[in-house]
Amino acid sequence: MVARKKQVGVGLIGFGTIGTGVVKILRDHARDIEARLGAQLKLVRIADLDTRTDRGVRMDKGVLGKDAHGLIDDSRVDVVVELIGGTEPAKSFITRALLQGKAAVTANKALLSVHGLELAKIAEKHGALLGYEASTGGGIPIIRSIREALAGDRNREVYGIVNGTANYILSQMTKGAGSFDEVLARAQAMGLAEADPTYDVDGIDSLHKLAILVAVAFGKKINPARVHVEGIRHISTADIAYATEFGYTIKLLAVARDTPVGVEARVHPTMVPNSHLLSQVGGAFNAIALQGDALGTSLYYGQGAGMMPTATAVVADAIDAARCVLGHRAPSVPPFGRPAREIRVAKVLPMADLAHEHYVRFKLADKPGVLAKITAILAKEEIGIATVAQHEERAVRGAVPVVIRTHRVVEGALKRALNRIDVLKDCRARPVSIRVEERLGERN
Amino acid sequence: MVARKKQVGVGLIGFGTIGTGVVKILRDHARDIEARLGAQLKLVRIADLDTRTDRGVRMDKGVLGKDAHGLIDDSRVDVVVELIGGTEPAKSFITRALLQGKAAVTANKALLSVHGLELAKIAEKHGALLGYEASTGGGIPIIRSIREALAGDRNREVYGIVNGTANYILSQMTKGAGSFDEVLARAQAMGLAEADPTYDVDGIDSLHKLAILVAVAFGKKINPARVHVEGIRHISTADIAYATEFGYTIKLLAVARDTPVGVEARVHPTMVPNSHLLSQVGGAFNAIALQGDALGTSLYYGQGAGMMPTATAVVADAIDAARCVLGHRAPSVPPFGRPAREIRVAKVLPMADLAHEHYVRFKLADKPGVLAKITAILAKEEIGIATVAQHEERAVRGAVPVVIRTHRVVEGALKRALNRIDVLKDCRARPVSIRVEERLGERN
Repeated sequence: MVARKKQVGVGLIGFGTIGTGVVKILRDHARDIEARLGAQLKLVRIADLDTRTDRGVRMDKGVLGKDAHGLIDDSRVDVVVELIGGTEPAKSFITRALLQGKAAVTANKALLSVHGLELAKIAEKHGALLGYEASTGGGIPIIRSIREALAGDRNREVYGIVNGTANYILSQMTKGAGSFDEVLARAQAMGLAEADPTYDVDGIDSLHKLAILVAVAFGKKINPARVHVEGIRHISTADIAYATEFGYTIKLLAVARDTPVGVEARVHPTMVPNSHLLSQVGGAFNAIALQGDALGTSLYYGQGAGMMPTATAVVADAIDAARCVLGHRAPSVPPFGRPAREIRVAKVLPMADLAHEHYVRFKLADKPGVLAKITAILAKEEIGIATVAQHEERAVRGAVPVVIRTHRVVEGALKRALNRIDVLKDCRARPVSIRVEERLGERN
Repeated sequence: MVARKKQVGVGLIGFGTIGTGVVKILRDHARDIEARLGAQLKLVRIADLDTRTDRGVRMDKGVLGKDAHGLIDDSRVDVVVELIGGTEPAKSFITRALLQGKAAVTANKALLSVHGLELAKIAEKHGALLGYEASTGGGIPIIRSIREALAGDRNREVYGIVNGTANYILSQMTKGAGSFDEVLARAQAMGLAEADPTYDVDGIDSLHKLAILVAVAFGKKINPARVHVEGIRHISTADIAYATEFGYTIKLLAVARDTPVGVEARVHPTMVPNSHLLSQVGGAFNAIALQGDALGTSLYYGQGAGMMPTATAVVADAIDAARCVLGHRAPSVPPFGRPAREIRVAKVLPMADLAHEHYVRFKLADKPGVLAKITAILAKEEIGIATVAQHEERAVRGAVPVVIRTHRVVEGALKRALNRIDVLKDCRARPVSIRVEERLGERN
């Protein structure tokens, strides 16, 4: 028997918010973690370009430096935690660690969504652990759950709220706290949204997470650039009010379905029935649901961002890595739950071919015949209408809001129809359409 | 390097509903599981006293027999799945497997809640896997999530809906489908409740699961016999109606909190605010929430019972076990996430000392001075009253319903007061009290 180590060394690259959380947990929960592992999990080195800012955590002299490569190569470092984000140099750092058989733990969704498979292959070849629980759903253990707990099931559908900032904004708007711009400005002032909120409110962050979920849930690699992505900037208080009136809540959803002909994947605002659990996920919380052949619906809810929640996921991966180090062995489960060679590149189904129910809001001239023209255009594209409501009482300067609920219609046909309607003189604003999801998994 | 096996053998003891589900999943998902493992996970033998009933699944000749000991000792069997339930002979079977270093996978909550620690010690000593994901929350991966994903956090509170039958009955009552007896009779006719529903509706099944959750979440062993357990038989349609009126839903909750002086643990019907996700968990679904120092609230939702959902959890454990067999190694994580020697026996705090808010419904003689008498008795026990509603219009045969909402009161004091009120001549029925939980974790 090989002598058992009494300490596993963690090296942290990127000493920002999440990094500070990791340092705090390793310090505050040191005794409990040692009880679990039978050895210390110790932060031995940190690399960050900024070595001056006070993060409010004390550390020994010589721990913090600027040399990431030196950290990775340091023989005391068994587990490399990468928290700098972005593609490079993060990818090089992780690769360098894995090539030495060292564990790499990351929260980097942008990197994983595109290069996850490539990194997994390197990890598997070198018997190293690649942990990325923190990349998706923050502290929600969604990667681990899909990869291990649902390993006996066949996952057909994965969907959910994976961006806390967007969910916070929509939740505040639903509470009547103001328009998108007003709520965003307040969220920025409170530190809940970035100065440049593009990634969050335009759905890009959700897209990255969706690509990772698809890989682990379906064993398929998709090209994120092929996925239809729509943000929430165009959601108005009028749409929020109509949703409430109809018994729905507008949520930014990431949705993927595995089909024999390809993967359906999309990110967009969605009207979710108030009877569905996802409609009740408020504030900055996230929730991810899976639909499996055997298990049916399962759902995982928690804080999808923030210093401490995300840090718990990083530390959980580091504990996993420590178990490998202590046992002198490679991880028993590959990064995506099956060997990387079993993960197939899959086609993303064209959005134009998919069919959904839609809510469409028009602003039309308040005169006879206009609605007839609109419905004729919709009929020509074979768009079935479930309900029409014309709100005379809400007319403003000769323009009246008209809200239509369609049956399931092919996206391409609806788009063509709305483009034709948009150019009509009596159409006073670009029509707004929001998908309505009645079929998300099973109901209670 | 040791030659890699191409097959891992599963032996199944107990060929009932869940067992049949396991057989189906191993058959239907064989190819996907083989891709994950790089080896077959094959059912090689089944033992059941009943070898005649047709379970609707075909199997090779010689697979099904009556000899459980022979199955465990069979050299082709690497993983023993125990699905007969109860303490004996289940405990002997599992022990026999573990002593040979074979993996044991079980859904047996009654056994685990009392003997889990003892079995974990044997498993650890012999380098064998003890899997019990299916014992709690059915297909919800709650054990694994707490044990591994939340390993870096300190769990303070675990609570939830862990019995599908009771939740189905309460959900139906909330929908106005009838009284407890009526809904139970229908659930029995539909196969959703057992002929003897005691375990489910009296909270015993929830208690078993709570004891398991406490062990894995807090690292503490409690004596289930010390836990306050209250079922749902006494919940009337009147209570359901009042709950709805006040914006609450009545749920059978299992709740545990870790404190420095002991573990608070209890199972009872609870009024949950409709703003809390747990209130939205309908039908036979389960949901379990955790409150951690770093992660805050997380919640896990899914089907807590039933053939296929529970079988997915059994198969996930069997896949874990297969990875150990294939890697010729002991499991890297002990059954309760930390070595059994680190799990401490903890005191269950006496229910009489805990304080909660309560809803109390009285049936009082409709005459002057009665309410004053009641409130005087409550005042004497220092029970603060938040609201009182006397419903003259709902008076029946001279008795009027009076509903009181208390502030947080010590359980023992309330019990004394209600006992004193109960014996009053003007008290026409035993007062009904239901705890109100406003403080369950964080709100949205």
